[in-house]
Amino acid sequence: MPHFMDVHEGFGGVTQGQFEDAATAESTIEAEEGVHFEHSWLDPEAGKLFCLSTGPSKEAVLRIHARAGHPTTEIYEVPIEVS
Amino acid sequence: MPHFMDVHEGFGGVTQGQFEDAATAESTIEAEEGVHFEHSWLDPEAGKLFCLSTGPSKEAVLRIHARAGHPTTEIYEVPIEVS
Repeated sequence: MPHFMDVHEGFGGVTQGQFEDAATAESTIEAEEGVHFEHSWLDPEAGKLFCLSTGPSKEAVLRIHARAGHPTTEIYEVPIEVS
Repeated sequence: MPHFMDVHEGFGGVTQGQFEDAATAESTIEAEEGVHFEHSWLDPEAGKLFCLSTGPSKEAVLRIHARAGHPTTEIYEVPIEVS
Protein backbone atom coordinates (compact mmCIF):
# COMPACT_ATOMS: atom_id res chain seq x y z
CA MET A 1 0.00 0.00 0.00
CA PRO A 2 1.50 3.37 -0.97
CA HIS A 3 2.62 5.87 1.64
CA PHE A 4 1.49 9.50 1.43
CA MET A 5 2.45 12.72 3.18
CA ASP A 6 -0.11 15.51 3.15
CA VAL A 7 0.25 19.05 4.39
CA HIS A 8 -2.28 21.43 5.98
CA GLU A 9 -2.20 25.08 7.01
CA GLY A 10 -4.28 26.97 9.54
CA PHE A 11 -3.79 24.83 12.67
CA GLY A 12 -2.19 27.65 14.67
CA GLY A 13 -2.75 27.57 18.42
CA VAL A 14 -4.13 24.04 18.43
CA THR A 15 -3.32 22.08 21.60
CA GLN A 16 -2.40 18.39 21.96
CA GLY A 17 -5.90 17.58 23.22
CA GLN A 18 -7.65 19.53 20.47
CA PHE A 19 -5.44 17.84 17.88
CA GLU A 20 -6.23 14.38 19.24
CA ASP A 21 -9.95 15.19 19.09
CA ALA A 22 -9.62 16.48 15.53
CA ALA A 23 -7.75 13.35 14.44
CA THR A 24 -10.61 11.21 15.72
CA ALA A 25 -12.75 12.59 12.91
CA GLU A 26 -10.42 10.90 10.42
CA SER A 27 -9.78 7.68 12.33
CA THR A 28 -13.51 7.04 12.71
CA ILE A 29 -14.11 6.91 8.94
CA GLU A 30 -10.68 6.14 7.39
CA ALA A 31 -11.39 2.41 6.91
CA GLU A 32 -14.29 3.20 4.60
CA GLU A 33 -11.73 4.22 1.96
CA GLY A 34 -8.99 1.75 2.92
CA VAL A 35 -6.95 4.64 4.34
CA HIS A 36 -4.92 4.63 7.56
CA PHE A 37 -3.34 7.69 9.13
CA GLU A 38 -0.13 6.44 10.72
CA HIS A 39 1.27 9.59 12.29
CA SER A 40 0.73 13.34 12.27
CA TRP A 41 3.00 16.19 13.37
CA LEU A 42 1.85 19.73 14.15
CA ASP A 43 3.67 23.05 14.52
CA PRO A 44 1.12 25.11 16.51
CA GLU A 45 3.10 28.33 15.97
CA ALA A 46 3.17 28.12 12.16
CA GLY A 47 -0.16 26.28 12.03
CA LYS A 48 1.44 23.66 9.77
CA LEU A 49 0.36 20.03 9.94
CA PHE A 50 1.95 16.96 8.29
CA CYS A 51 0.05 13.66 8.03
CA LEU A 52 1.63 10.35 7.03
CA SER A 53 -0.83 7.78 5.74
CA THR A 54 -1.28 4.62 3.72
CA GLY A 55 -4.11 4.19 1.28
CA PRO A 56 -5.10 3.13 -2.21
CA SER A 57 -4.65 6.62 -3.74
CA LYS A 58 -4.06 10.31 -3.02
CA GLU A 59 -7.72 10.92 -3.80
CA ALA A 60 -8.88 8.42 -1.14
CA VAL A 61 -6.73 10.12 1.53
CA LEU A 62 -7.99 13.57 0.54
CA ARG A 63 -11.60 12.41 0.60
CA ILE A 64 -11.22 11.20 4.20
CA HIS A 65 -9.66 14.51 5.23
CA ALA A 66 -12.42 16.47 3.46
CA ARG A 67 -15.22 14.38 5.01
CA ALA A 68 -13.59 14.80 8.45
CA GLY A 69 -13.68 18.58 8.01
CA HIS A 70 -9.95 19.00 7.32
CA PRO A 71 -9.67 19.44 3.56
CA THR A 72 -6.32 19.98 1.85
CA THR A 73 -5.04 19.73 -1.71
CA GLU A 74 -1.33 19.29 -0.91
CA ILE A 75 -0.36 15.62 -0.90
CA TYR A 76 2.70 13.63 -2.03
CA GLU A 77 3.18 9.94 -2.67
CA VAL A 78 6.43 9.03 -0.87
CA PRO A 79 7.65 5.63 -2.11
CA ILE A 80 11.25 6.34 -1.06
CA GLU A 81 12.14 6.35 2.64
CA VAL A 82 15.24 6.33 4.77
CA SER A 83 15.37 5.76 8.52
CA MET B 1 14.71 17.01 22.66
CA PRO B 2 12.42 18.85 20.21
CA HIS B 3 11.18 17.21 17.05
CA PHE B 4 11.47 19.02 13.71
CA MET B 5 10.10 18.49 10.22
CA ASP B 6 11.99 20.11 7.37
CA VAL B 7 11.07 20.26 3.71
CA HIS B 8 13.22 20.27 0.57
CA GLU B 9 12.52 20.73 -3.13
CA GLY B 10 14.50 19.60 -6.16
CA PHE B 11 14.90 15.86 -5.47
CA GLY B 12 13.03 14.80 -8.61
CA GLY B 13 14.10 11.50 -10.17
CA VAL B 14 16.18 10.44 -7.17
CA THR B 15 16.25 6.66 -6.62
CA GLN B 16 16.18 4.75 -3.31
CA GLY B 17 19.91 4.04 -3.58
CA GLN B 18 20.81 7.62 -4.44
CA PHE B 19 18.68 8.85 -1.55
CA GLU B 20 20.37 6.48 0.90
CA ASP B 21 23.76 7.70 -0.29
CA ALA B 22 22.68 11.33 0.05
CA ALA B 23 21.38 10.72 3.59
CA THR B 24 24.78 9.36 4.61
CA ALA B 25 26.18 12.86 4.23
CA GLU B 26 23.93 13.97 7.10
CA SER B 27 24.26 10.89 9.29
CA THR B 28 28.06 11.10 9.20
CA ILE B 29 28.14 14.57 10.80
CA GLU B 30 24.78 14.96 12.60
CA ALA B 31 26.18 14.11 16.05
CA GLU B 32 28.51 17.11 15.90
CA GLU B 33 25.45 19.34 16.42
CA GLY B 34 23.46 16.95 18.63
CA VAL B 35 21.07 16.34 15.73
CA HIS B 36 19.54 13.01 14.68
CA PHE B 37 17.59 12.44 11.49
CA GLU B 38 14.96 9.84 12.40
CA HIS B 39 13.16 9.32 9.12
CA SER B 40 12.88 10.88 5.66
CA TRP B 41 10.24 10.50 2.95
CA LEU B 42 10.72 11.39 -0.72
CA ASP B 43 8.31 11.94 -3.60
CA PRO B 44 10.61 11.46 -6.62
CA GLU B 45 7.94 12.77 -9.02
CA ALA B 46 7.39 16.10 -7.26
CA GLY B 47 10.99 16.22 -6.00
CA LYS B 48 9.67 16.92 -2.50
CA LEU B 49 11.51 15.62 0.56
CA PHE B 50 10.40 15.61 4.22
CA CYS B 51 12.90 14.98 7.03
CA LEU B 52 11.93 14.28 10.66
CA SER B 53 14.67 14.99 13.16
CA THR B 54 15.50 15.69 16.78
CA GLY B 55 18.00 18.33 17.78
CA PRO B 56 18.68 21.27 20.04
CA SER B 57 17.29 23.88 17.59
CA LYS B 58 16.06 24.51 14.06
CA GLU B 59 19.36 26.21 13.31
CA ALA B 60 21.38 23.13 14.30
CA VAL B 61 19.31 20.91 11.99
CA LEU B 62 19.65 23.37 9.11
CA ARG B 63 23.41 23.65 9.64
CA ILE B 64 23.80 19.86 9.28
CA HIS B 65 21.72 19.87 6.09
CA ALA B 66 23.74 22.77 4.67
CA ARG B 67 27.10 21.18 5.52
CA ALA B 68 25.90 17.91 3.95
CA GLY B 69 25.14 19.76 0.73
CA HIS B 70 21.35 19.76 1.12
CA PRO B 71 20.46 23.25 2.33
CA THR B 72 16.87 24.29 3.03
CA THR B 73 15.21 27.12 4.90
CA GLU B 74 11.81 25.47 5.49
CA ILE B 75 11.64 23.85 8.91
CA TYR B 76 8.96 23.46 11.59
CA GLU B 77 9.18 22.53 15.24
CA VAL B 78 6.47 19.88 15.76
CA PRO B 79 5.84 19.44 19.51
CA ILE B 80 2.35 18.01 18.93
CA GLU B 81 1.99 14.50 17.51
CA VAL B 82 -0.71 11.90 17.06
CA SER B 83 -0.20 8.29 16.05
